[in-house]
Amino acid sequence: MAIRSLESESRAAGLLSLDELRVMLRAVGEQRYHHKHPFHLLMHEGKLSHSQLQAWALNRYYYQSMIPIKDSIILSRGPDPVFRRAWRKRVVDHDGDGSSEGGIQRWLKLAEATGLNADDVRAGKGILPATRFAVNEYLNIVRNRSLLEAVASSLTELFSRDLISLRMEKLRQHYGWLSGGLDYFEARLRQAPEDAHFAINYVYEHAKTRVEQELAIQALRDKCDILWAQLDALYFAYVQPAWPPPGAFRMKDAEA
Amino acid sequence: MAIRSLESESRAAGLLSLDELRVMLRAVGEQRYHHKHPFHLLMHEGKLSHSQLQAWALNRYYYQSMIPIKDSIILSRGPDPVFRRAWRKRVVDHDGDGSSEGGIQRWLKLAEATGLNADDVRAGKGILPATRFAVNEYLNIVRNRSLLEAVASSLTELFSRDLISLRMEKLRQHYGWLSGGLDYFEARLRQAPEDAHFAINYVYEHAKTRVEQELAIQALRDKCDILWAQLDALYFAYVQPAWPPPGAFRMKDAEA
Repeated sequence: MAIRSLESESRAAGLLSLDELRVMLRAVGEQRYHHKHPFHLLMHEGKLSHSQLQAWALNRYYYQSMIPIKDSIILSRGPDPVFRRAWRKRVVDHDGDGSSEGGIQRWLKLAEATGLNADDVRAGKGILPATRFAVNEYLNIVRNRSLLEAVASSLTELFSRDLISLRMEKLRQHYGWLSGGLDYFEARLRQAPEDAHFAINYVYEHAKTRVEQELAIQALRDKCDILWAQLDALYFAYVQPAWPPPGAFRMKDAEA
Repeated sequence: MAIRSLESESRAAGLLSLDELRVMLRAVGEQRYHHKHPFHLLMHEGKLSHSQLQAWALNRYYYQSMIPIKDSIILSRGPDPVFRRAWRKRVVDHDGDGSSEGGIQRWLKLAEATGLNADDVRAGKGILPATRFAVNEYLNIVRNRSLLEAVASSLTELFSRDLISLRMEKLRQHYGWLSGGLDYFEARLRQAPEDAHFAINYVYEHAKTRVEQELAIQALRDKCDILWAQLDALYFAYVQPAWPPPGAFRMKDAEA
């Protein structure tokens, strides 16, 4: 009875149901998630050079290294111990503990498997400024927007399992020399869906108005742009041609 | 006598003299300032299309619109009324007052001269996410680093007069239809050198150690990267090929 009346209230307020919310979030992923980015397409086709994979591993390390900082900011904003206990898992997943080395260390192993020096990678030597700008924007979002939006910005994890499965298969197929460096992805196959499950339920329960639901969806859109921009920067610096990201100004007199 | 002993103290501390500091800052500009960016080179050669100039005016508007916000953050961090009175000029220059429309309004006129709708430009409709990320990093710097570094990050104004003079000449030469929209640059020809004069003296007087001088120089380097990344994003989205920005990882197996 209580649930019924909550549901009718929700409908009256124009709120999306959990299923409708999921559909909207998935639509954002279809349009903007980086599984469609040409840099990843080249990777999956085995067309990236050794150096291009190095540039990717190096730059993406900066993203990886900031994830537990991003999650610590969210921890610092969560007023509820139950929420913090649940969210803390993410920091442990990336920073490790007595029994696990953690995602950052695993990414370093991947970078080393490409032939990079771990100390140089850790120091961010040679990373693209655009990588820093995009990743730092993720910190801005979780610091400056509502906690709801901060949580929602993690929802790219709804899509990451499929991309990681495909990537592992393709990396093994085309770049066998990288096979020893894939522990990071192996761990994420399990972690990401757990995290996404928690986050989507949190967003559904805490977005009390349609406006708040829209803000949560926008946070996911912005997070997708952050991932996309990192690959744009790589493509631009280390591969080639030119296209605007989803939603950006398009030229009327473009040749392509 | 007092000056003498201050000078010897400075030398003992390995401090750069004002002239040496200026030389170091100019060297950063030579290496990293965006006067060398291929997007500007194309502009000055008259090789950008109408739409490419629109994309530039649109995206750069976001930068312009954030300048007085950046300067207001610096104002909010300046404990000294004399400093604030001097710095306040910058907010007035961009936001205008009873007697002057201000730089933001002037940039909108430029955007309109390219055929864009001022309301769309003001709303940031279609700007590149990478533009936002780079510009927001400027806000991060002035918010999170020392006041000295925040002031030093403005020192690209040491170089802007020359670039603006050249740009005005070339825009008039190659894109006559834009001539009515150049008031912004006209005003900056006078404002930028005044601002740079104040800022370099401030940095010289307030950097008490060589380490602080190096942090100030680094802030200028980072600011150059912010300008450069905005043009990279434009070039990548609206022009073409591929090169890493100054200082970034270079590929050993690159063809170009």
